[in-house]
Amino acid sequence: MMRKTYKPAFFLACRLGSTIYQQTYLKISKLNMSVSNHVQSASPAKILTYESINPHVKRVEYAVRGELAIRAEQIKDELSKENSHNYDFDAVVNCNIGNPQQLKQKPITFFRQVASLTEYPDLLLPENREQVEALYPTDAIERAQKLLKEIGSVGAYSHSQGIHYIRNNVAKFIEERDGYPANPNDIFLTQGASAGVQAVLQLIITHSNVGIMIPIPQYPLYTATLALYDAQPVPYYLNEEEDWGLDLSQLASSLSVGRSKGLDVRALVIINPGNPTGQCLTEHNMREIVDFCHNEHIVLLADEVYQTNIYQPDERPFHSFKKVIRSMGKKYERFELFSFHSVSKGMIGECGRRGGYYECTNIDSRIIEELYKMASVSLCPNVQGQIMVDLMVQPPKRGDKSYTSYQKELNEIYESLRRRSMKLSECFNQLEGVTCNNAQGSMYLFPQLRLPQKAIEAAHQAGKKPDEFYCLAMLDATGVCVVPGSGFGQKNGTWHFRSTFLPPEELLDGFCIKLQKFHNEFLEKYCD
Amino acid sequence: MMRKTYKPAFFLACRLGSTIYQQTYLKISKLNMSVSNHVQSASPAKILTYESINPHVKRVEYAVRGELAIRAEQIKDELSKENSHNYDFDAVVNCNIGNPQQLKQKPITFFRQVASLTEYPDLLLPENREQVEALYPTDAIERAQKLLKEIGSVGAYSHSQGIHYIRNNVAKFIEERDGYPANPNDIFLTQGASAGVQAVLQLIITHSNVGIMIPIPQYPLYTATLALYDAQPVPYYLNEEEDWGLDLSQLASSLSVGRSKGLDVRALVIINPGNPTGQCLTEHNMREIVDFCHNEHIVLLADEVYQTNIYQPDERPFHSFKKVIRSMGKKYERFELFSFHSVSKGMIGECGRRGGYYECTNIDSRIIEELYKMASVSLCPNVQGQIMVDLMVQPPKRGDKSYTSYQKELNEIYESLRRRSMKLSECFNQLEGVTCNNAQGSMYLFPQLRLPQKAIEAAHQAGKKPDEFYCLAMLDATGVCVVPGSGFGQKNGTWHFRSTFLPPEELLDGFCIKLQKFHNEFLEKYCD
Repeated sequence: MMRKTYKPAFFLACRLGSTIYQQTYLKISKLNMSVSNHVQSASPAKILTYESINPHVKRVEYAVRGELAIRAEQIKDELSKENSHNYDFDAVVNCNIGNPQQLKQKPITFFRQVASLTEYPDLLLPENREQVEALYPTDAIERAQKLLKEIGSVGAYSHSQGIHYIRNNVAKFIEERDGYPANPNDIFLTQGASAGVQAVLQLIITHSNVGIMIPIPQYPLYTATLALYDAQPVPYYLNEEEDWGLDLSQLASSLSVGRSKGLDVRALVIINPGNPTGQCLTEHNMREIVDFCHNEHIVLLADEVYQTNIYQPDERPFHSFKKVIRSMGKKYERFELFSFHSVSKGMIGECGRRGGYYECTNIDSRIIEELYKMASVSLCPNVQGQIMVDLMVQPPKRGDKSYTSYQKELNEIYESLRRRSMKLSECFNQLEGVTCNNAQGSMYLFPQLRLPQKAIEAAHQAGKKPDEFYCLAMLDATGVCVVPGSGFGQKNGTWHFRSTFLPPEELLDGFCIKLQKFHNEFLEKYCD
Repeated sequence: MMRKTYKPAFFLACRLGSTIYQQTYLKISKLNMSVSNHVQSASPAKILTYESINPHVKRVEYAVRGELAIRAEQIKDELSKENSHNYDFDAVVNCNIGNPQQLKQKPITFFRQVASLTEYPDLLLPENREQVEALYPTDAIERAQKLLKEIGSVGAYSHSQGIHYIRNNVAKFIEERDGYPANPNDIFLTQGASAGVQAVLQLIITHSNVGIMIPIPQYPLYTATLALYDAQPVPYYLNEEEDWGLDLSQLASSLSVGRSKGLDVRALVIINPGNPTGQCLTEHNMREIVDFCHNEHIVLLADEVYQTNIYQPDERPFHSFKKVIRSMGKKYERFELFSFHSVSKGMIGECGRRGGYYECTNIDSRIIEELYKMASVSLCPNVQGQIMVDLMVQPPKRGDKSYTSYQKELNEIYESLRRRSMKLSECFNQLEGVTCNNAQGSMYLFPQLRLPQKAIEAAHQAGKKPDEFYCLAMLDATGVCVVPGSGFGQKNGTWHFRSTFLPPEELLDGFCIKLQKFHNEFLEKYCD
């Protein structure tokens, strides 16, 4: 079997903020060769070997569930199996992934009541009315009836683009949020926002010379998808000193670098509020971005899944790009935009549901047809995910029986998240050599680590990136699993990690004390 | 903007059993040119035009939800809106897609009871016990408790490969079915079988010269996925005269044609029981196929989603490829196989759920790691889909409270499906010029149409394939929506359509009468 020669594009795609990728590549090459030797000697040889599979798949990296997460799973296993263990903690706390209900966040009761009723329609029969009314509020019963009337059965394939009735409700929600019209035919319900992002990027990417502008740091879905579809990331750096703000000059210079490499730069990804960085864009900044895309003939992808995770609502409210564009007048009336939203985030946190949507603004009808055709190949998004989208965009209204309890649950989660974000950033800022911006939005903090030279050397000796080395040590010492900054990209020579602030408040104090202890010991061990 | 030149591979991929593809291509080229002109004249120009998007996406065809299905939706809309309409029917019957619950098949009660309870865990609190026991059987309550204990919340992301507890149960199910061990680490839970097929093909396809052997007729997921990932279908024809049987000589000649074109033929897809053709392979035939793959160094993909839709259980029982391979002894102990299953089919029919799994047999551990990494990028399959997989592989057992009612529901659906398959194939066989094999398995019949020359000419004049022309006329006359054979591939010069036999029995007689009338009128209109 011949070794494939990788084109230079491979290096370009993977050398985001670190040269470690190249080392990894060399390591993989050696492994490939040994696999290849093995194939030649053993009999019968495997047909599918690491060497012989899709190189684009191999290039994909996804740190959120990478080495740290795998190590965390191992420790969990050890903790569950062994009576006596060697850890200073009794449980692993997964701060590596925005998964609120895994960390005991209670689901919104009304939403689950409706889901429960739609699963078992016999509950809606007149003969069960009395018992069911003792367990479910009447507005949940009415909502389930309405949904089943529109849907038929949650066990049937729906329209591939999503149930029309629900897309209609999404359009109304967008209209109310933005004050501008929305068309249900431009809305696609999806299995979470990620599936939508992948569908749109798959469509836009035509060849390996296509460039997609992405923020650094970024959510690794983007680099993973670009690697898979063989396109080139064109990174622009967020400004850590300015609360991870977006400087327009960065966009311009990033684009110019991309174009000077001969890339066909077709789209710009904005994650607002930011992941992993938690910033929230001002309206002024958004107008600049729109103007930039307009002048440069670039499509905008707006990842707005954290639109309700806003912790400084007066200074930094959320604005959707759709609204900002519509408010900018006639010159921008054909501006092409894809906006993504999800039921996994906000106060809902229904990640396991896999529900979301994207809205196409000013996208050509033939492109919509192609997106619809591709959605058809996967048949339809799961119907309970679609129902959760309906509940997100049409929660109980004032006067509804469940309104008060819904608002109470929502506010409690919101206030608690805000408190936790403050508490955790204070904790990080108290660590020697660590600085951390407050979260304006989203579910994450992205503190910067200044590591002693000896720690960096020890990391290199262990074959790890320095932030990865620190995070692995943190996991072993505290049970807290975070994601190294290198998984998201960061300025050369800087080191970070991403942590959610989702652990329950009663755990956070203990977490901070353990972290302080670990950090001091780590610095002591590796002091220069 | 420059027009892209398509490589010859495009034609190879799309010219399956018909030259119409080429006509379509020419039509598209013309449209592209007009779009291109438009781009040059209008201002501001669209960035995303049909011309400028991924050509592989454009190549994808998916007939199950193609023109016929879109026309059916339009008619549905008209029927719902207009008081007086011009149709001889009051409802559209969707026989184009295997979607049992859309056609009023009742879900399995026990499965839905468990799903309902897991959605709303407050129902499991002691204070609600009495009311809940009045509505749910105790074994459903116990199962929901067990699942929630293992899962936590259905709203949390699970392990990307699927919940370990459920994969363990899938492994036990496979062991009991086959009598050979299965490993939960080799099992991936998926959003329906389609997602699994796509994940595996994405991995196997390394370049545009990879060939994948697929049956003709085939389920169009396969050609769609090959077009998208830019690989070449290597078609082998099923033998209509022998109940759509698989001749080994066909495999050999198909492979040799593929290889003579310079293709790197890496995998063989078998759909068993067949879709759209309904055949069920004999164990002898399966051994021949395994031997063929072994000798030719080809990976086997076994699409076994219809494994319980077996209507001649004595003559044609279902055997899994996993079992057959294991029974063939040491020579085949490293045979590489992927097997796919789903909750959408069988007697369960929970299509809207998007649940399924695939099992990797003898797949290299590094390949499994790559599949796991790719699953991580999509985070996890939806949890209710995973729960339905658990229920499918662990239904109520003898002695359980719900066992009798579960068995009764299952048998009623099964017997009714079998009766309907017979009734519909009789109906088709009574039509002049139509012949139809009985279904040994699956949910479909694939009758052959012998059309008068005048009908073929009329179709060509209308820019339609003859079977498409016939099916559109059938839809307009009867309200029954089927899929033209050209969407699945068929021998040159033959014409078919695929129809599910899922309409309720009380509708089927009326359907047959309307069809007979339409068919006679069609033949009369176009008699030679």
